Amino acid sequence: MNKPTSQAEFPTPEVTTGPLAGSRRVYSHPEAAPHLAVPHREIEVHPTAMEPAVRVYDCSGPYTDPDQTIDVEAGLPRARDAWVTGRGGVEAYEGRELSPLDNGNATGKYLAREFPVRRKPLRATGSAPVTQYEFAKAGIITEEMIYAAERENLGRRAALPGAAERHADGERFGAEVPQFVTPEFVRDEIARGRAIIPANINHGELEPMVIGRNFLVKINANIGNSAVASSVEEEVDKMVWAIRWGADTVMDLSTGKNIHNTREWIIRNSPVPIGTVPIYQALEKVGGIAEDLTFDIFADTLIEQAEQGVDYFTIHAGVRLPYVPMTADRVTGIVSRGGSIMAKWCLAHHKESFLYERFDEICEIMRAYDVSFSLGDGLRPGSIADANDRAQFAELETLGDLTRRAWDKGCQVMIEGPGHVPMHKIKENMDKQLRECGEAPFYTLGPLTTDIAPGYDHITSGIGAAMIGWFGCAMLCYVTPKEHLGLPDRDDVKTGVITYKIAAHAADLAKGHPAAKLRDDAVSRARFDFRWEDQFNLSLDPDTARDFHDQTLPKEAHKTAHFCSMCGPKFCSMQITQEIRDEFGTARSPNFSAEVEEGMAEKAAEFKAKGGEIYLREE
Amino acid sequence: MNKPTSQAEFPTPEVTTGPLAGSRRVYSHPEAAPHLAVPHREIEVHPTAMEPAVRVYDCSGPYTDPDQTIDVEAGLPRARDAWVTGRGGVEAYEGRELSPLDNGNATGKYLAREFPVRRKPLRATGSAPVTQYEFAKAGIITEEMIYAAERENLGRRAALPGAAERHADGERFGAEVPQFVTPEFVRDEIARGRAIIPANINHGELEPMVIGRNFLVKINANIGNSAVASSVEEEVDKMVWAIRWGADTVMDLSTGKNIHNTREWIIRNSPVPIGTVPIYQALEKVGGIAEDLTFDIFADTLIEQAEQGVDYFTIHAGVRLPYVPMTADRVTGIVSRGGSIMAKWCLAHHKESFLYERFDEICEIMRAYDVSFSLGDGLRPGSIADANDRAQFAELETLGDLTRRAWDKGCQVMIEGPGHVPMHKIKENMDKQLRECGEAPFYTLGPLTTDIAPGYDHITSGIGAAMIGWFGCAMLCYVTPKEHLGLPDRDDVKTGVITYKIAAHAADLAKGHPAAKLRDDAVSRARFDFRWEDQFNLSLDPDTARDFHDQTLPKEAHKTAHFCSMCGPKFCSMQITQEIRDEFGTARSPNFSAEVEEGMAEKAAEFKAKGGEIYLREE
Repeated sequence: MNKPTSQAEFPTPEVTTGPLAGSRRVYSHPEAAPHLAVPHREIEVHPTAMEPAVRVYDCSGPYTDPDQTIDVEAGLPRARDAWVTGRGGVEAYEGRELSPLDNGNATGKYLAREFPVRRKPLRATGSAPVTQYEFAKAGIITEEMIYAAERENLGRRAALPGAAERHADGERFGAEVPQFVTPEFVRDEIARGRAIIPANINHGELEPMVIGRNFLVKINANIGNSAVASSVEEEVDKMVWAIRWGADTVMDLSTGKNIHNTREWIIRNSPVPIGTVPIYQALEKVGGIAEDLTFDIFADTLIEQAEQGVDYFTIHAGVRLPYVPMTADRVTGIVSRGGSIMAKWCLAHHKESFLYERFDEICEIMRAYDVSFSLGDGLRPGSIADANDRAQFAELETLGDLTRRAWDKGCQVMIEGPGHVPMHKIKENMDKQLRECGEAPFYTLGPLTTDIAPGYDHITSGIGAAMIGWFGCAMLCYVTPKEHLGLPDRDDVKTGVITYKIAAHAADLAKGHPAAKLRDDAVSRARFDFRWEDQFNLSLDPDTARDFHDQTLPKEAHKTAHFCSMCGPKFCSMQITQEIRDEFGTARSPNFSAEVEEGMAEKAAEFKAKGGEIYLREE
Repeated sequence: MNKPTSQAEFPTPEVTTGPLAGSRRVYSHPEAAPHLAVPHREIEVHPTAMEPAVRVYDCSGPYTDPDQTIDVEAGLPRARDAWVTGRGGVEAYEGRELSPLDNGNATGKYLAREFPVRRKPLRATGSAPVTQYEFAKAGIITEEMIYAAERENLGRRAALPGAAERHADGERFGAEVPQFVTPEFVRDEIARGRAIIPANINHGELEPMVIGRNFLVKINANIGNSAVASSVEEEVDKMVWAIRWGADTVMDLSTGKNIHNTREWIIRNSPVPIGTVPIYQALEKVGGIAEDLTFDIFADTLIEQAEQGVDYFTIHAGVRLPYVPMTADRVTGIVSRGGSIMAKWCLAHHKESFLYERFDEICEIMRAYDVSFSLGDGLRPGSIADANDRAQFAELETLGDLTRRAWDKGCQVMIEGPGHVPMHKIKENMDKQLRECGEAPFYTLGPLTTDIAPGYDHITSGIGAAMIGWFGCAMLCYVTPKEHLGLPDRDDVKTGVITYKIAAHAADLAKGHPAAKLRDDAVSRARFDFRWEDQFNLSLDPDTARDFHDQTLPKEAHKTAHFCSMCGPKFCSMQITQEIRDEFGTARSPNFSAEVEEGMAEKAAEFKAKGGEIYLREE
């Protein structure tokens, strides 16, 4: 049961605010739309470095901007409303009436307080473009596209003189990552179905972002209360906490009571796209009895959530009746909650899934609010043994068919993927998804590369996530250390997010993303120069890096000392490298090549002959 | 400075003993040598599973066997002495006299107590085979080879009826992992130089193990005090702790004072091979002044450590004078401690490295005790920017030359590798190493796949370690969360070991190791059956898995309940799968295929037509 909370007692969720150590939130104004203020994070480095601040992607929202006033009771500012209404094709209407069932018939002290502000929802009025896909197809560049393009560039136009060479350093497996992301590129990718901007027209608080294989790899964090644990305020706090550390989107997977009100608090305070699995709430509405689900209850739930502003829905329309028996011989059967709900329904009625049968009607609802499809992999493998089996791939082929049907209806689509997959089967997943689903963005959970480490599944899956991100996956759904064991708390959320930021960044590096390496190089230079504070601040988690350093060398002086705890003060390998530089010079010194060549000739005559051979063999 | 410890006050190191939860240490007796008792770990599963206990590789030593008496003051039993002396070709001799300099001239309360027992060391007497390489070349199968072969099989002869098919499921990149490991296979691999058994003839306490790409991927844990932190007893405890969680070898990287005595305590209590970097101690002997190093001091240090029983030495003989200037333009120069010591020496004297120049003499010492070479990569990249550069690869080519020279002298050899390498450059490292070094085992540190996450470098490197292990790396040197920041404590050691067990196991799975998947399947079946205790006990870290579960569902009853905290008691996806099985049957039921086909025909007529097509396309 949820924690009891009375209307009066329900506290305002407390969220973490303030900048990350050494960072500040800055805004840029795209050429194509100077009235837009697009956020970035700038990390200052010590003046002795003689380097500009390092600009990184920022999805933390106004919470990290000390100039913004945060009022969780009011929600975030809704700058996007004007863009949506300005484009036309939508109307405000009364909206569906809230039913006690939407909050699981919770009453009295068990009912979470409603969000204080209520607005009329928007929906499409006719056939004029409403979704980002429709605008893109019509050749129209939206504010969302301009905004997302500006974020993707990370300010690299200014900071990357040698970009062209770096660009070449990577293996892309067919991805077409551009040197610079333009709004037109974003539009074109969306029109081709290769990218989406999850952006419900009712999510006015959104800072738009783009998901696709030709953009930075994104990560999602799951939050949500369940029937046995957690409360509303904890979930809002987890959302803010997750985006602080880098979650690009957040899924609210709440079950149990108070689903509606919990979600409203989350969306009204979320600058990132929010995803849900509507079948979870629909199941609650029928008392947890899968066979009692109907299309009407499901469709009503979609409208309920679409009016609130959910940006993408996981819909398990690929779990077809004929595929269900294919799972009988698996080691772990059906592990997707949504997949098993639909399997149970199909079995109970001996009928094809209503999600599949009435997919066109679902598309119409999705289009009316521009909710993106996240076509769920209800038959994903739950163990190494079941990876890439006929059930999984049969469903994936159906998801390919559904992708094209959704595009025909004007919807944006991404595809969910596994799960548990050993390393040698990961690429087959990615390649098949690209082929079957026309390059629609792939959005995978992990995958976990072994089953033997519960308690460390952020790591078993981080390995698979980095690899599939490299191979072309557009968004990685995080896995926390509590996977398979319990519900993540704040610490687990942070560990999951940081692990997946590592995976996504490692993938960007391997793909040769033209700006990804800038941050690695900045960290490495700071490390080499013993600029400890810079090394901490440039890292994904400055607090932990600083804390670990201080556990061995607590004194403040040690943070400026030119040695570290590994070698101690007497001997230091980095110091010796400095001496080599002093002797031979570096490219940073104006007459580098002359110095080096002179040095080589003088100190080690055999170098040229030997070295020359090496280069011939290697380059 | 090391902590002050007086001879009297120096406490007996306290180490963790007792079995892991749900496990017991068992012994098997190889056909070829029934007098050998080879350890394994057996994990019991609940009787309802109707499955045999799961047997896993065990490197924890007698510490996890409650029938053994542990006396750290006496050291472990020395079963191996009889094998070594029984083969002949060795003599006991007085040994080098211990010098105060060996412990950094520490005196009084600053000098760590000597290990209570002293034995005469053994060394080779002539040209009769002494090293495992020499025996292998001579066609002689040693006890060490029989022992190591028995361990590799994990008891899979009994437990793997369908092994042949599983065998095929993997991508090996040219590795030749056999269905069953025989002593003859081990001998042949060693004779070809493709594997080593690090086994100093003076390490009588050793439980031998084999390192090579055609065996299970191994992991190493680094321990060691440094000039600024840690003490002797902490290091012995860390060694026992590291092997408890699965470290296959341990490197003692101590610097500062008391190096000799610390090492003696570690080796006398270690059932796993111990590696060191002798140049560290040699540097201490010349007061930390690299340019004061001489070959004589270095060679004397090799003998000192070889007499103690160190099983492998990192020797940075590939850091040649001509390569030093190649590092001047790097972002992070030379980050290897040993590499920078030798670079400094070369620069100071404007001479070729004495390790390279007098490599044959080093080989003679190594051979006399069967200390294996771990040819160090002193020019490994310390950042993504420096990966796979000309300095790194020039050194690797030299290591290939040195490998052949060491083989000619009868020595066992492995090769150390980087470091910091983005994902798309990892395979190039592995392939080049195999090519240049004649398939001598590769032993890599990570590699770290990004530089931006200090505090999480076990994860940045775990990704790279899993990949390079898959590609053919034989042993993975762990990285702890403290990498770049400080010295690992017990918790860090455990986290590093578990992370690397994950990487090694993920690699074994992807290579299609014939027995690796057995454990994954056992965990997955336990998970599916809600056998919570089995899931915990079968995992790499039962304590953490249990603890995480209890944080959400603390009650004992929940460990047998057929639900988990993710979905709660009302609805459970695994329950639904059980219903599917009840309806369609599984391969476990005797008439599975008939049932399924009947079920399919009856419930979903379109399945066969559609399904048939799918199989034609996919298989």
